[in-house]
Amino acid sequence: MKQVLAEVITIGDELLIGQVVDTNSAWLGQTLNPAGIEIKQITSVSDDAAHIVEAIEQARKRVDILIITGGLGPTRDDITKVTLANYFGVGLKVDQIALEHVRSIFAKRNLPMLDINEQQALIPENCIPIHNDRGTAPGMWFEDKGQVIVSLPGVPYEMKNMISTFVIPKLQTLFTMPVIRHRTLLTSGIGESYLSKKIESIELGLPPHIKLAYLPNFSTVRLRFSARGSSATELDLELDQIARRVKETIGNYLAADGDVQLQQIIADLLVKENATLSTAESCTGGYIAHLITSVPGSSRYFTGSIVSYSNEIKIAQLEVSESDLAEHGAVSEPVVRQMAEGARSKLGTTYSIATSGIAGPDGGSEAKPVGTVWIAVSGPKGTISKLHLLHGGREQVIQRSAMIGLDMLRQVLSDEL
Amino acid sequence: MKQVLAEVITIGDELLIGQVVDTNSAWLGQTLNPAGIEIKQITSVSDDAAHIVEAIEQARKRVDILIITGGLGPTRDDITKVTLANYFGVGLKVDQIALEHVRSIFAKRNLPMLDINEQQALIPENCIPIHNDRGTAPGMWFEDKGQVIVSLPGVPYEMKNMISTFVIPKLQTLFTMPVIRHRTLLTSGIGESYLSKKIESIELGLPPHIKLAYLPNFSTVRLRFSARGSSATELDLELDQIARRVKETIGNYLAADGDVQLQQIIADLLVKENATLSTAESCTGGYIAHLITSVPGSSRYFTGSIVSYSNEIKIAQLEVSESDLAEHGAVSEPVVRQMAEGARSKLGTTYSIATSGIAGPDGGSEAKPVGTVWIAVSGPKGTISKLHLLHGGREQVIQRSAMIGLDMLRQVLSDEL
Repeated sequence: MKQVLAEVITIGDELLIGQVVDTNSAWLGQTLNPAGIEIKQITSVSDDAAHIVEAIEQARKRVDILIITGGLGPTRDDITKVTLANYFGVGLKVDQIALEHVRSIFAKRNLPMLDINEQQALIPENCIPIHNDRGTAPGMWFEDKGQVIVSLPGVPYEMKNMISTFVIPKLQTLFTMPVIRHRTLLTSGIGESYLSKKIESIELGLPPHIKLAYLPNFSTVRLRFSARGSSATELDLELDQIARRVKETIGNYLAADGDVQLQQIIADLLVKENATLSTAESCTGGYIAHLITSVPGSSRYFTGSIVSYSNEIKIAQLEVSESDLAEHGAVSEPVVRQMAEGARSKLGTTYSIATSGIAGPDGGSEAKPVGTVWIAVSGPKGTISKLHLLHGGREQVIQRSAMIGLDMLRQVLSDEL
Repeated sequence: MKQVLAEVITIGDELLIGQVVDTNSAWLGQTLNPAGIEIKQITSVSDDAAHIVEAIEQARKRVDILIITGGLGPTRDDITKVTLANYFGVGLKVDQIALEHVRSIFAKRNLPMLDINEQQALIPENCIPIHNDRGTAPGMWFEDKGQVIVSLPGVPYEMKNMISTFVIPKLQTLFTMPVIRHRTLLTSGIGESYLSKKIESIELGLPPHIKLAYLPNFSTVRLRFSARGSSATELDLELDQIARRVKETIGNYLAADGDVQLQQIIADLLVKENATLSTAESCTGGYIAHLITSVPGSSRYFTGSIVSYSNEIKIAQLEVSESDLAEHGAVSEPVVRQMAEGARSKLGTTYSIATSGIAGPDGGSEAKPVGTVWIAVSGPKGTISKLHLLHGGREQVIQRSAMIGLDMLRQVLSDEL
């Protein structure tokens, strides 16, 4: 079956000078791919008419569908709309529905309406407007020589809604999409190259319509198998067989069957056990609690956290021994164990995770350099603590410590530790 | 002065299917731009040799410098190195220094070395190897027809070090860079279109070598002026004059002069006042504490946080009144005020921020829909609390609540509230 290919073109100087990270493209990949649309390329260009037109012309040589985001705001640096009208050689017209919509938004917020806000309802004459439920700038749908060109706002919350409710359904009426299926296995505790060696014969035996990718992320590696064909049932059967062989081969290195995050695996394990969780965080500064509470419904098992950045709070809130702090320092095994046990008892939970380390850039010493992190997990069977020497900057040390802490808890909950 | 232009080519199917967000490109923009190198385009392509070559050929028509990241790992899906050797029509050779380096890494970690690890030391014959202090894959520097093509690992921590210590210094010996200067003003409490209207005459009067961009982000808008020329002193003088006029025009809407984040502004204000801070977080689940502790040196003013996800912890750890919880619910003004005051007294700080809201997707009601968030800031002059009705999904509600909480504290510290 023929591939249906799309290119994402993101517009904005802020992307090129790095003031903003492009998260729209990843979301578009995640969303279009399961619908059978493969993203062939992502291209980010500046707020410059000639450059935008060049990107459009080159993309049209590669793909059937162009998804353009950005440059639709009310200010002068936003030029996508006029550039598209000029590219197609048409004028702008007022879209009455969009105009009423903009007016109603300003009326509801009780704000005065400016000329530049009215201009948001102007669209190129040859496009179908796409209603923007969540903002003032309408999207635009163009069809030209069998290709579809869609222009959407760069604001993620607005763009996502328009893709899901309008763009994908309409594309599905125009193109016959192939079936694309992914199957991901999450591994933990084994490096990328050892993993590759272990499953070498499976990888070499893959049929041409199935691809394998290795996606390392701190302490885990995701194995992603991607299959393309015409029958979801057949592809899933094939992927199931491959996944079964991989799982037999890697044994305990499997952390989860599926494209799930550690915090979701933990959520499922805790709910199954009817257990609760708390954290006591020093160097991770609340980041583990944030990861846990990013899962919808986490209030069922997560009661809270004591972020004990200062020693005083370790003593007063977590009942860490003052003399152990003085003797061993905050970044030490006795302190991290007492933090974990203190959180469990003070916050009344079945399990707890605790961290104490030096995230840097300052605070390191010869005996305890930046990246020295003690992590403990406490539960009904006792407390486990481990020392890690992590590399990377402050951000990396915080993130790695959080991932290791979550993975330690996962192992405890799975009786692997 | 002639622009020196670069294109970033990121390689990897994981970017196109959205399994990984490309953060490397933004970092490269942030880092190359101040060195005088402008990124003209960012192109993300699949792990496919023909597509990689097409991207290289097209980029060479646009720019002087190509920075390629990704596809240098030890596994079979990593094909960048062989593709580049084929593109230049050369073979691969062993780089002895890289080989010794890989061997020493495995020896230090006490891990057995595999054939595929040895192969990491193979590089195309026509390239200069770039030492990778932080990993096993060396980078590659090619010069061809006056253009520079650099290939680096996709692992951010490794790539960043190679750019800073090798690539930029070497580019500076080959190209005469123009001077690029940015000046950013952070505004708060005013929408993009009103701001644009307010500073219209300044914007229309900008000379052609200075560009203005509006970068909205939750409750703030960044105004970024970018100037290109040959003298840093002259450009800075020009930008200073413009910034002064803007500041006079926008008055109290100015949150900070400079490209700084709210958590850094707060850090500076707290240190100046010799004051301390704590948080009591319900719906933000530790995210405010995480933002605050992402600033190096935050232990000077941040003592900790009580993430009180459950009501029991609100009562036991923050001394919230049980009857107020029963009468008004957790998401209410009396509760958020008591949380802020409880954190201040239990964690012994000058100021505190508290949040209580419904992040969704579940838990909303007609009276308190998803997005209802109470935020309070407590300090020596009393406690301020505000109700917000935020739109967006769970992630947006958490992030917006955190930004609003930080901005409320900033206003209190600046005597604006």
